[in-house]
Amino acid sequence: MVKKEFLDAKEKALRSLEKACTEKKADKEILPILSLINDSEECYTSSSCAGRIVLLEIPKIGDKKKARFLGKWHRTIEPNELETAAKKAKNGLLWLIAQSPIIHIVTDTSEMADTIVKTAIASGFKNSGMKSIRKKIVVEVCSTERLDAPIGRDGILFCEKEYSQLLIDISNEVFKKSMDKLLRFEDKLRDILS
Amino acid sequence: MVKKEFLDAKEKALRSLEKACTEKKADKEILPILSLINDSEECYTSSSCAGRIVLLEIPKIGDKKKARFLGKWHRTIEPNELETAAKKAKNGLLWLIAQSPIIHIVTDTSEMADTIVKTAIASGFKNSGMKSIRKKIVVEVCSTERLDAPIGRDGILFCEKEYSQLLIDISNEVFKKSMDKLLRFEDKLRDILS
Repeated sequence: MVKKEFLDAKEKALRSLEKACTEKKADKEILPILSLINDSEECYTSSSCAGRIVLLEIPKIGDKKKARFLGKWHRTIEPNELETAAKKAKNGLLWLIAQSPIIHIVTDTSEMADTIVKTAIASGFKNSGMKSIRKKIVVEVCSTERLDAPIGRDGILFCEKEYSQLLIDISNEVFKKSMDKLLRFEDKLRDILS
Repeated sequence: MVKKEFLDAKEKALRSLEKACTEKKADKEILPILSLINDSEECYTSSSCAGRIVLLEIPKIGDKKKARFLGKWHRTIEPNELETAAKKAKNGLLWLIAQSPIIHIVTDTSEMADTIVKTAIASGFKNSGMKSIRKKIVVEVCSTERLDAPIGRDGILFCEKEYSQLLIDISNEVFKKSMDKLLRFEDKLRDILS
């Protein structure tokens, strides 16, 4: 991508991020690192999601389009919150999912993309990689840690109290680790970006 | 990487793959696609793992070094196989994990790497990306589908029969989908590689 195209695309991306912030649709836990990236001349963020814990109902395996969010938390959770959310279950499989953050970064050179991938991997985001390096250069920053556990079907929970406590502990652990990694990545990025 | 270095590294990688095959340490389900990649002049595989279902015991969360494999299958499994393997559990958390295949491909140009990433994503390996594009150019091919479910602690299973049947169904589904994706990727690669 030539510099002018890069700058135009960056302006557009920043406008839509600003809009998302105004409408409170942006995940605020991730905003400091987005600002850091967007303040540099060499890159910008095109999309992102902070780490989260979700309770999802999927009518059929793999049929994500028909999935319903029964709960969504950008923080650690308590057992009663999961119980309350699970009461909304109707039919299909109920999944408790803990997801690490994901950030898409567009860079102006492939060298910068390579540097960001290596920095992300060194910060603990082991699943990071460049998605495209011709025309648009896109880096995806993400981690391997996650929990994907089916916990019920057709409104009936499979879990005993002890087991659901364990799943919550693990989900909270994934969330906390994600936040640590974000801080580490932010620190390292600050040294790299102009 | 200059062409000579690429060819030397390729020769070395092929020798160690051959050794792994002779010692039956290579996953045979994945060998056809590895051959296809290694027969082309523009790339070679540096490491790979076919999709699999594993039963893993981890003494402490995240402490993968001390993890023990109680079961490892490169195929779909039956409930009694999981039960038998679970009997070996002693202490720590017991996880049932279904993993998609992962293939690392080194290419001679970044254009080829970009093409392979896009082909992999189009074949269903949505988590694919370039890990490095300076010096050594490395593509990681992998998928998002997986199951990571804790199913017991300190030798005691949390699961009722119905729940463990569900986890097995999902694991088998992940495995079967992985095999379909590998075939799709192989077909598409055949059109691209020389």
